[in-house]
Amino acid sequence: MTEPEPGGSLLIAWQLKARPVLLVGGGEVAAHRLAALLSADALVILIAPSPLHRNIIPLLSNPIYSIAYHDRLFEDIDIERFSPSMVLTALDDVTTSRSIAAQCRERHIPINVADDPPACDFYFGSIIRRGPLQILISTNGNGPKLANLVKKRLEGSLPEGVGTAVEKVGQLRRKLRERVPEIGGDIGRRRMRWMSKLCEAWEIDELASLDEESMERLLDLGWETGLVPKSPEIFVQNLGQQRNRNSVPSRNASLTLSMRPFMTGLVGGMAMTTIILFIMQRRAW
Amino acid sequence: MTEPEPGGSLLIAWQLKARPVLLVGGGEVAAHRLAALLSADALVILIAPSPLHRNIIPLLSNPIYSIAYHDRLFEDIDIERFSPSMVLTALDDVTTSRSIAAQCRERHIPINVADDPPACDFYFGSIIRRGPLQILISTNGNGPKLANLVKKRLEGSLPEGVGTAVEKVGQLRRKLRERVPEIGGDIGRRRMRWMSKLCEAWEIDELASLDEESMERLLDLGWETGLVPKSPEIFVQNLGQQRNRNSVPSRNASLTLSMRPFMTGLVGGMAMTTIILFIMQRRAW
Repeated sequence: MTEPEPGGSLLIAWQLKARPVLLVGGGEVAAHRLAALLSADALVILIAPSPLHRNIIPLLSNPIYSIAYHDRLFEDIDIERFSPSMVLTALDDVTTSRSIAAQCRERHIPINVADDPPACDFYFGSIIRRGPLQILISTNGNGPKLANLVKKRLEGSLPEGVGTAVEKVGQLRRKLRERVPEIGGDIGRRRMRWMSKLCEAWEIDELASLDEESMERLLDLGWETGLVPKSPEIFVQNLGQQRNRNSVPSRNASLTLSMRPFMTGLVGGMAMTTIILFIMQRRAW
Repeated sequence: MTEPEPGGSLLIAWQLKARPVLLVGGGEVAAHRLAALLSADALVILIAPSPLHRNIIPLLSNPIYSIAYHDRLFEDIDIERFSPSMVLTALDDVTTSRSIAAQCRERHIPINVADDPPACDFYFGSIIRRGPLQILISTNGNGPKLANLVKKRLEGSLPEGVGTAVEKVGQLRRKLRERVPEIGGDIGRRRMRWMSKLCEAWEIDELASLDEESMERLLDLGWETGLVPKSPEIFVQNLGQQRNRNSVPSRNASLTLSMRPFMTGLVGGMAMTTIILFIMQRRAW
């Protein structure tokens, strides 16, 4: 276990599915907040006098999102009226923001006030998303822009297909839970250990290639014995088609790429020697 | 702006500094939870009958942490007694866990129940820490082990000195806030823009090299004019010493490393051609 390192925050994935969240403000920051809330399937109550930021408008009319828009200023009764499970403000008006924050704290409603860290129960950061995989980069209020730079750096190093791999491992885990539904205890620990072993033994692209059939075979062969079958044992009956369809072809491509400096050198060396010997021979004549 | 992508969580950095958090359980999972809480400077109330997990014991007696340990089973009155701002349970006993969760939900206290996603207000994930920089990798309950694999991959690609850079940018930001303390509005936006420009124009190792003196010079030269001075303009008066002391020497090393395949190829090509020409010459004789 790593030793605790004080001075940080508790980084968590908050569940907002089908929960009412109040967003006060209609500018650029509010547009970012709204996108984050909709990505978490929240029921958004948006209070802000028009005009709204241009990125907000198309979201309002999109039926896949749930946004109840109120074209007006915030009123003190709104907290009681909507009894939201979370409140976000993105206003230039500090007095209103702070009064909303005070109301929320009194009622134990989690609150974030944009650009006012002391008034916040939690901070935002930069986000990377790959299917069910989400990554938060937080500088703990030291510099949002730097979080963005780190984000760009990290995005480049995420393995291809990692989102699909996470999705497939989740499906497998749910199937395993159906077979052995106990929560916690020895069975819970055994289930966790077996999933861990699998994730360590298999490559990301192998996990991403799992389908219904191969998952069942994997559980039949593996769970009861406590062993993790090697991926060819699982995929062999699919005649290799299944795997190739989903697998990520980047490994060969990157091998070719890494050979390039060597090949350039090889050709260069051959050319150099030929020229040297040619010159030497001319001199000898 | 990126389009919202439903199906995720809201990833946030929760503030626990000097806030009471109730942790119920004393096993391995509880040990991990405890470390996370102490990294966020929480005041931990730990309820679990001994024996505790071996990773918990040394933390209890370390004076830098605040842990109030109660060597007993959880009692229903504990939630009211301690009125915590967050509750975490890591128990094998599902009935107790669920009854704690129900109490918390009634009182709007954020709750996490280990190994029981439906009972949770939020999930944990894998964490990377570099000074004030924190990164959360969440698979949204699809596979904690996979988050760990992704974590290892990302750790390798974080620039050296990134923690120090975040720290220094935070200091600079606070200095700027002292000069122009307005919250929100045009000044707030101008302050944000200037910090953004700086973070984009400077390299991570240049930001990491900032000290008191160079920060003041940077603000004198840059803020009023709205321009971002280049780093040599700021560091020149330190005669280069300051910068070299903190800067990261990895760039030259990695250049040498990337030249290696080319040089190998070059030598190989020269050798091959020499051998071919040598053989050709012998045949010609």
